[in-house]
Amino acid sequence: MSNIFRVIGITGMPGSGKSELARIGKDFGYTIVIMGDVIRQKVREEGKEPTPENCNLMMQELRRRHGPNAVALATVAEIEKISKEGKNKFIIDGIRSQDEVVTFRKKFDDAFSVLAVHADSKFRFNRLKERKRSDAPTTIEEFNRRDQVELSVGLGEAIAYANYMIENNSNIEEFKKKVYDFFNHFEQVEK
Amino acid sequence: MSNIFRVIGITGMPGSGKSELARIGKDFGYTIVIMGDVIRQKVREEGKEPTPENCNLMMQELRRRHGPNAVALATVAEIEKISKEGKNKFIIDGIRSQDEVVTFRKKFDDAFSVLAVHADSKFRFNRLKERKRSDAPTTIEEFNRRDQVELSVGLGEAIAYANYMIENNSNIEEFKKKVYDFFNHFEQVEK
Repeated sequence: MSNIFRVIGITGMPGSGKSELARIGKDFGYTIVIMGDVIRQKVREEGKEPTPENCNLMMQELRRRHGPNAVALATVAEIEKISKEGKNKFIIDGIRSQDEVVTFRKKFDDAFSVLAVHADSKFRFNRLKERKRSDAPTTIEEFNRRDQVELSVGLGEAIAYANYMIENNSNIEEFKKKVYDFFNHFEQVEK
Repeated sequence: MSNIFRVIGITGMPGSGKSELARIGKDFGYTIVIMGDVIRQKVREEGKEPTPENCNLMMQELRRRHGPNAVALATVAEIEKISKEGKNKFIIDGIRSQDEVVTFRKKFDDAFSVLAVHADSKFRFNRLKERKRSDAPTTIEEFNRRDQVELSVGLGEAIAYANYMIENNSNIEEFKKKVYDFFNHFEQVEK
């Protein structure tokens, strides 16, 4: 691997701004690998439709064969595959536990960093509602339940252990500025 | 309670910069209440020396009588006592779980905010070593064990759920500037 090989893992609570951050990373030449997409891809490779049910079955199959970090390991394989095409800067979107962080660090060593995005609950809830994805929570109770599910798998620990942290509590312009500043600085750090 | 009553709870991993943050809060007129000190104070009130053993016994006694949030409840009582002296701005240093946050929010409602400090592990370890407190970790293994103890009681969750986040990954001057900016802005927010 060349010395400019870099992998940034993004983590953060639902609605904190991970996808927006990843999109900006694209402008800096990063290839985005979404952990959920890795599963969908595997389903397609078996000639099946990536329905929630098929994805869930694939996830179970992967976990049975490779343990609780199956998705992280499949993400590593995906990155190795793409890197053969000459890509050397990656963003992994959707890290949910410190166990996954350990898996990535074991593989990518110092080339791997974790960047967390943080936002207040009120901001996150409003953003998820505005985003209107099909799985967006409609009530605060549903939102809180989803937060709890994420925290129960170890998301809080992954955030606490992040190498970098960007706050997203004001507005999109200020967030974008912070993210651009981060990448401009990060790109200059010797690895 | 007057409408300018404010309580800021500080949380963060060991060595992230909580005490420095609290010290700056003093410049803005905040009274610092350190959760560990509340226990020591209670031991003294019983005419005993606040040795680690006596503090531990007091902690157990409080938990037996008031449940797992005993220290948070004792901190609330301490703040209520001091507020009778005309103080109305408090910083609680040392929040370690979301359960404690819930206890404080129940009591102080919208007057209560959580501010987390974040720093990379390498920075935190170096800072703890430089600080040279009697309980500072001397090896990375000891440091990691202490992190794990903190995370096991729910610190990651408290950090993930914080209202505000300040990053402390560069140097003391930049951190101080960020903290001053935070307080200058926070003091102007209507509560």
